[in-house]
Amino acid sequence: MHIYYVNGHFCHKDSSFVSVEDRGFNFSDGVYEVISFHNSKIVNLDKHFKRLQRSLNGLKISNPFNNFKSLELIFKRLIKINKIFDGFIYLQITRGTSARNHQFPSSISPNIVIFCFLKKDIKKLLNGVTVGLSDDLRWKRCDIKSISLLPNLLEKQKAVEQGFYEIWQTTDNYITEGSTSNAFIVTRDNIIKTHPSNNFILGGVTRDCVIEIVKKNNLNLEENAFTIDELKICKEAFLSSTTAGIIPVTKVNDFKIANGKKGNLTIKISKLYHQYIDEQLNE
Amino acid sequence: MHIYYVNGHFCHKDSSFVSVEDRGFNFSDGVYEVISFHNSKIVNLDKHFKRLQRSLNGLKISNPFNNFKSLELIFKRLIKINKIFDGFIYLQITRGTSARNHQFPSSISPNIVIFCFLKKDIKKLLNGVTVGLSDDLRWKRCDIKSISLLPNLLEKQKAVEQGFYEIWQTTDNYITEGSTSNAFIVTRDNIIKTHPSNNFILGGVTRDCVIEIVKKNNLNLEENAFTIDELKICKEAFLSSTTAGIIPVTKVNDFKIANGKKGNLTIKISKLYHQYIDEQLNE
Repeated sequence: MHIYYVNGHFCHKDSSFVSVEDRGFNFSDGVYEVISFHNSKIVNLDKHFKRLQRSLNGLKISNPFNNFKSLELIFKRLIKINKIFDGFIYLQITRGTSARNHQFPSSISPNIVIFCFLKKDIKKLLNGVTVGLSDDLRWKRCDIKSISLLPNLLEKQKAVEQGFYEIWQTTDNYITEGSTSNAFIVTRDNIIKTHPSNNFILGGVTRDCVIEIVKKNNLNLEENAFTIDELKICKEAFLSSTTAGIIPVTKVNDFKIANGKKGNLTIKISKLYHQYIDEQLNE
Repeated sequence: MHIYYVNGHFCHKDSSFVSVEDRGFNFSDGVYEVISFHNSKIVNLDKHFKRLQRSLNGLKISNPFNNFKSLELIFKRLIKINKIFDGFIYLQITRGTSARNHQFPSSISPNIVIFCFLKKDIKKLLNGVTVGLSDDLRWKRCDIKSISLLPNLLEKQKAVEQGFYEIWQTTDNYITEGSTSNAFIVTRDNIIKTHPSNNFILGGVTRDCVIEIVKKNNLNLEENAFTIDELKICKEAFLSSTTAGIIPVTKVNDFKIANGKKGNLTIKISKLYHQYIDEQLNE
């Protein structure tokens, strides 16, 4: 847990530094991924690499790896050195170090930081969490998984201070997504609804898995944003993220969802999701 | 120029580092100021301190300085050590270093980085610059001078790639401000217009000086946003920033402003601004 990777070196976390002129530090000019591993096996790696490449393209940061195979080898080495078998990999790539100037500098190399962290105990969440609603403050390119996360921090902090697990962000009465997760409802007609993948949401890897699973199992899904009113009368609600998986939402602000219990379809999708992951891990 | 201040230490820039778990680096969880100095005298210091405190309040980061006098002493020491007499001070304060977690950690100390940089030669700009227009991508708390600057970077880069000096950002056909400056027009009725100071713009210190000067000199000013159509038929246009001062805008996209020449009122305000600064420096 204490060995980090910084620009080609494996070093103790207490000596893992970047320059104060790193553009991530000065400008939030960088991207990141959080990737899960079980029994030392990395989950959804292709999906994370695909999104990472998309984020790098979005910011015109050249990919510092000739191919993602070398990045995978670093992940595996870090997992081995740190002797943890279940956890998450955090990867951050910034444009690099340069005298402070808004314009992209030419010929600098990206800075790369990778470390692992342990899984939290999420048992308590599995029976359902509460969610607050708040105006979506974010910029118009949420599809880029950038480190420009200040609005997300403010929303998560608001959730904590108001006694919610998460904040679902709203734009023009529609729910976009959570501060650190994607948002789903099940309508009274058993249609699963979630905001479409566009510049207003991040488009999580776990969200993509849910959609894949739902389609494969012939459940009804609409990638259409749902309103606060639809949320109030929905049958079930749940959220998804790489770190928490699929978590039932049983209360939104002061109104109960599904009588405050986890819904049947949520339970089903959660099971199918675990099967989906297990299949990957047993390959 | 090569001695930086990092958390209480004066060190060479090549050994000026922050942890890879600094929350500015991971989350853009921090604020900054850029402050000008002439002949080693710091300009508009009170205004910068006031805004810094506002930004810190906006993010609920506790001010690491008992009073701003101690911060001023660090600035002066840096200017002296680095032996530069005209330049800018860059100050960045992040929430601090902590294991990555969106929620604000308790009991961590802010990280503080301060360094100086030289003035660029802006002579070429004084006869007028070109500006492009682009949709304002930013979040809804632009009033906080945070390091969450990714949209500003993308806009400045767009300006460079499209051959403009700057991009003026637009929301619903109204100009908010530039990617690194504030935007002004002079209407055919000699009314100076600029976007009001609210959560949609940063509210630059130089902008505030311009407003102060204009009011003091009984010129007509309206803090009302102007539209693209108003911009197209305006008499004069200019931009303001700490690093460039007051710069005439002579072309926006492909339409000329003031026949491509700097306007009389712009020249007047620029002169008054220099007097205003000189008075401060001669105090």
